[in-house]
Amino acid sequence: MAAMEFKILKRDNSSSARVGEISTPHGSVMTPCFMPVGTSAAVKTMSPRELREVGAQIILANTYHLILRPGTEIIKKAGGLHKFMSWDGPILTDSGGYQVFSLAERRKVTEEGVHFQSHVDGSACFLGPEESIKAQEAFGADIITTLDECPPFPCEHEKVRESLETTLRWERRCKELHQEGESGLFGIVQGGVYRDLRERSVEALLETRFDGYAIGGLSVGEPTSQMYEIAEFTASLLPEDKPRYLMGVGTPIDIVECVWRGVDMFDCVLPTRNARNGKAFTPDGPINVRSAKFKEDFSPVQADCDCYGCRNFTRAYIRHLLNVDEILALRLLTTHNLRFYLQLMSRLRGAIAAGATEAFRAAFKEGYRRRESSP
Amino acid sequence: MAAMEFKILKRDNSSSARVGEISTPHGSVMTPCFMPVGTSAAVKTMSPRELREVGAQIILANTYHLILRPGTEIIKKAGGLHKFMSWDGPILTDSGGYQVFSLAERRKVTEEGVHFQSHVDGSACFLGPEESIKAQEAFGADIITTLDECPPFPCEHEKVRESLETTLRWERRCKELHQEGESGLFGIVQGGVYRDLRERSVEALLETRFDGYAIGGLSVGEPTSQMYEIAEFTASLLPEDKPRYLMGVGTPIDIVECVWRGVDMFDCVLPTRNARNGKAFTPDGPINVRSAKFKEDFSPVQADCDCYGCRNFTRAYIRHLLNVDEILALRLLTTHNLRFYLQLMSRLRGAIAAGATEAFRAAFKEGYRRRESSP
Repeated sequence: MAAMEFKILKRDNSSSARVGEISTPHGSVMTPCFMPVGTSAAVKTMSPRELREVGAQIILANTYHLILRPGTEIIKKAGGLHKFMSWDGPILTDSGGYQVFSLAERRKVTEEGVHFQSHVDGSACFLGPEESIKAQEAFGADIITTLDECPPFPCEHEKVRESLETTLRWERRCKELHQEGESGLFGIVQGGVYRDLRERSVEALLETRFDGYAIGGLSVGEPTSQMYEIAEFTASLLPEDKPRYLMGVGTPIDIVECVWRGVDMFDCVLPTRNARNGKAFTPDGPINVRSAKFKEDFSPVQADCDCYGCRNFTRAYIRHLLNVDEILALRLLTTHNLRFYLQLMSRLRGAIAAGATEAFRAAFKEGYRRRESSP
Repeated sequence: MAAMEFKILKRDNSSSARVGEISTPHGSVMTPCFMPVGTSAAVKTMSPRELREVGAQIILANTYHLILRPGTEIIKKAGGLHKFMSWDGPILTDSGGYQVFSLAERRKVTEEGVHFQSHVDGSACFLGPEESIKAQEAFGADIITTLDECPPFPCEHEKVRESLETTLRWERRCKELHQEGESGLFGIVQGGVYRDLRERSVEALLETRFDGYAIGGLSVGEPTSQMYEIAEFTASLLPEDKPRYLMGVGTPIDIVECVWRGVDMFDCVLPTRNARNGKAFTPDGPINVRSAKFKEDFSPVQADCDCYGCRNFTRAYIRHLLNVDEILALRLLTTHNLRFYLQLMSRLRGAIAAGATEAFRAAFKEGYRRRESSP
């Protein structure tokens, strides 16, 4: 029996949006969903119970970071990633491919996999499809992903094509090794901004058959309009009955736009990283809480937000904490930003279920851009 | 009517220890108590609800830090310090004296007060007895303290004597300005390591009459045995019916020793600062969680501790978080260390109430030093 299942609960009539439910060994996830990024077995600044409180259903962890520190063996000995980090909800792990190509040094790609130097201590490492799957299975993740090569942007058609063919061979090896009863396995669609390569990628992955499909290689520098276009095109090629995960995307508006285009799952470091830079998301657009204009602003970051930060603290207080380098500032802003993202997903699910996706999308974009266009 | 009251509930027969209760406008505090240090209107890494969870009854905030950032006006406009930082329990503020003499630059002490340069931006500042009291009253603290000069160690008798006389004149001015109905005012005993000067200080303060008495000028470099001796001597001079607060002390053993010598209140940055350096307090003595020996130690920091950290996470996990610079590590260790201190105070109160102070003291010291003497 498959460890992961997906069912669609409601389809939107006027768009490709849908509400669904993914069941995993550690519980269910309503989609569209956003996965907070727990890079090294922790969502930065947050405790697991705070993640629950802001409404996180599932989190993501990075295989690349975990195999370097603390190492697969320690997580295995701890009884798996859930137990190690004390998070009992679903976990999705990436394959390590993206970070190997963005963080690691002296990469050498061969048919077997990637030789590289750790960005932490320069030690020689190797990650192939088998190593990635074995690590993710040792972690005990609920949803795991295939090893892929992520070409840069821009990149010539021929190079993206060659890279894609390597990725497709790696993905088949991942599928062969994968133990079906333990986790769901997602294939990753590559092909850059080239429609024919995206078609080729989807066609090959469908032949291999996966439990879900990730759209990789976007949000790597291409214009936003092109990202939307390729995400929409790729989503349209994917089977209705499997979840679609757009990797590393994005801003609140990106998420609204891509849910509308048929995407079910998202992850992004924006809410957590921006918080650590003093930035908060609001329905009127992002604000920089460090700004002097909030010096005596005794209102919460977002008046109608139900997060712990907004219920108890003011912009003036958080601005002060940022000024004196207090960690509590980063915690309160991370809490708020994650709540903002997760609340957005919940409202999107509500809008889709109510058949009001298009109205929600228009109203959200109108509100969100008001600040940017105001004098 | 006085804003602050103190009553003794139980005296120990074999020592000077006692259990008491301080009532303040924001609730009661059982003594002996430990006050977590909330330097700049935040106890580092902690949220107010977490402070409640670890058992904090009262916190301390630093007037020097607050007048520099965010400034008295902003706290006043926010509706006071309690509202600004969202802590509804009692707050004690120091007078700013200690930090002016340890942090500020280019000090010039006159009869009026201290001219100094802010350590933050070099701006010219002035703090006199009236400025300190007005700031602390504007903050709305429950217990406030007199401005004192804190001489270094070692320091000649004549210099300490002169400094003490200035301090005593400042303290009388503080008392004259203090609004009795709003807060309790503590006088600070100075006099360095000189018994005659400690006597002179207590005599003068008793004449002025305060709601409680702080023992200042200790834990500034003198040997621990001398600190105990002067704390004991000073406590013995102070009236039975007022709380005694030993400023800036200390290690868990220091606290046990000084409760035994008749001290009721403590504050210290050790539990919070050591946490941020990866160190945890345990009944067997302190441990450094960064140590390689904890790499695969899947037990909690302290097996019988009921804090959120110990209930959910292992030494191996926290060590990993320290290695990858995750803020959650500092949070979990701060939570544990504060719980350790506050649990110690609770156990001390229980031991005193049960007439078992001496047995508790002996057993605690025996356990705490075991690690240090083990091979």
